[in-house]
Amino acid sequence: MTRLSRGRFITIEGGEGTGKSTNVDRVRNVLEQRGFDVLTTREPGGTPLAEEIRSVLLEPRDEAVDPIAETMLIFAARAQHVAKVIEPALRVGRWVVCERFTDSTFAYQAGGRGVDADAVAQLADLAHPGVWPDLTLYLDAPPGAAMTRISTRSLDRFERERREFFERVRETYVARARDQSRIVLIDASRDLVSVQREIVRAVERFLSTHANP
Amino acid sequence: MTRLSRGRFITIEGGEGTGKSTNVDRVRNVLEQRGFDVLTTREPGGTPLAEEIRSVLLEPRDEAVDPIAETMLIFAARAQHVAKVIEPALRVGRWVVCERFTDSTFAYQAGGRGVDADAVAQLADLAHPGVWPDLTLYLDAPPGAAMTRISTRSLDRFERERREFFERVRETYVARARDQSRIVLIDASRDLVSVQREIVRAVERFLSTHANP
Repeated sequence: MTRLSRGRFITIEGGEGTGKSTNVDRVRNVLEQRGFDVLTTREPGGTPLAEEIRSVLLEPRDEAVDPIAETMLIFAARAQHVAKVIEPALRVGRWVVCERFTDSTFAYQAGGRGVDADAVAQLADLAHPGVWPDLTLYLDAPPGAAMTRISTRSLDRFERERREFFERVRETYVARARDQSRIVLIDASRDLVSVQREIVRAVERFLSTHANP
Repeated sequence: MTRLSRGRFITIEGGEGTGKSTNVDRVRNVLEQRGFDVLTTREPGGTPLAEEIRSVLLEPRDEAVDPIAETMLIFAARAQHVAKVIEPALRVGRWVVCERFTDSTFAYQAGGRGVDADAVAQLADLAHPGVWPDLTLYLDAPPGAAMTRISTRSLDRFERERREFFERVRETYVARARDQSRIVLIDASRDLVSVQREIVRAVERFLSTHANP
């Protein structure tokens, strides 16, 4: 009786180069210090099949990809990830910290590509019925700052998009953070120490209200 | 004014080893003899991206594939195929003859795997709104007969399913053929000459009612 039986689901969201993976690790540390059993994972991916789909999605290609086809590929990977990894972990009381989830699809495919947001919502209901993040940390930064951080890496199919695309992505994230109380907007344009301090504060606030025994 | 401006969409459906590709060619011949410009294609696949998805789908794997993930992968490939190949061809007046389409997904994923048929219908509406076959030739044969025909090839992830799976697939096809007048059931357990004679008859019947100038 010292802990909720079902684990909690925390996602880290944000644009390219905003420090998502570093902060997934930071959240994991905070939770582990509190004694929680934590699984960290990322999307698209998280299972061998879902990682194969990730490669298909990210590979730069000459063929123009239909936005609904792209969205369905992402949700196919997500359905597999939820069914085989996330839901089984939550069920046995593990906490799951995941880099990117369905908020990314609203931001990139609905906001960025113009896919109907209702279609994204319908696909989410089919791909992960009943599984939705309990807390989302959205790392907000202007696209320009982010793009310089990743300029040394070779660019995938999304990173090759134009600045306007990333501005629509950011606007969609910001609007969702404003409308949904589970999403905490973190100003990720500051130094890492300040960002991580705010991340820790947001996680502790969540724990004080959601993780009582 | 001698031909309809939009092409017609014909699909060939059926279980494993029922002679779908041979009959796609037969249908193409009949249509070309009548002066139609015909594109033949197949699913899953039909574009470079969709063929990559086909490989991901068919590859035998240790990881159990979630039925909704599988269904979304199929519709991702289909959305791409319709957007980049089928719809552009129909729009310029070409006739499209395709091996497998959404009836396969009702048969294999809803009938065979138990995915909710309403989910399949929802995904179909998102993946190919307004594009539905005008004529479907369903090649019906008992699963056993079909399996011996493909026994010499190495088996893909679907062909490794058990006999009960293929019986559910067949039952679903038969029920759909009974309920929908666009689907013509062809007894494919007979010799190829008889089967092709019936195919030609079905196509000519369709032409006499749907292809008047």
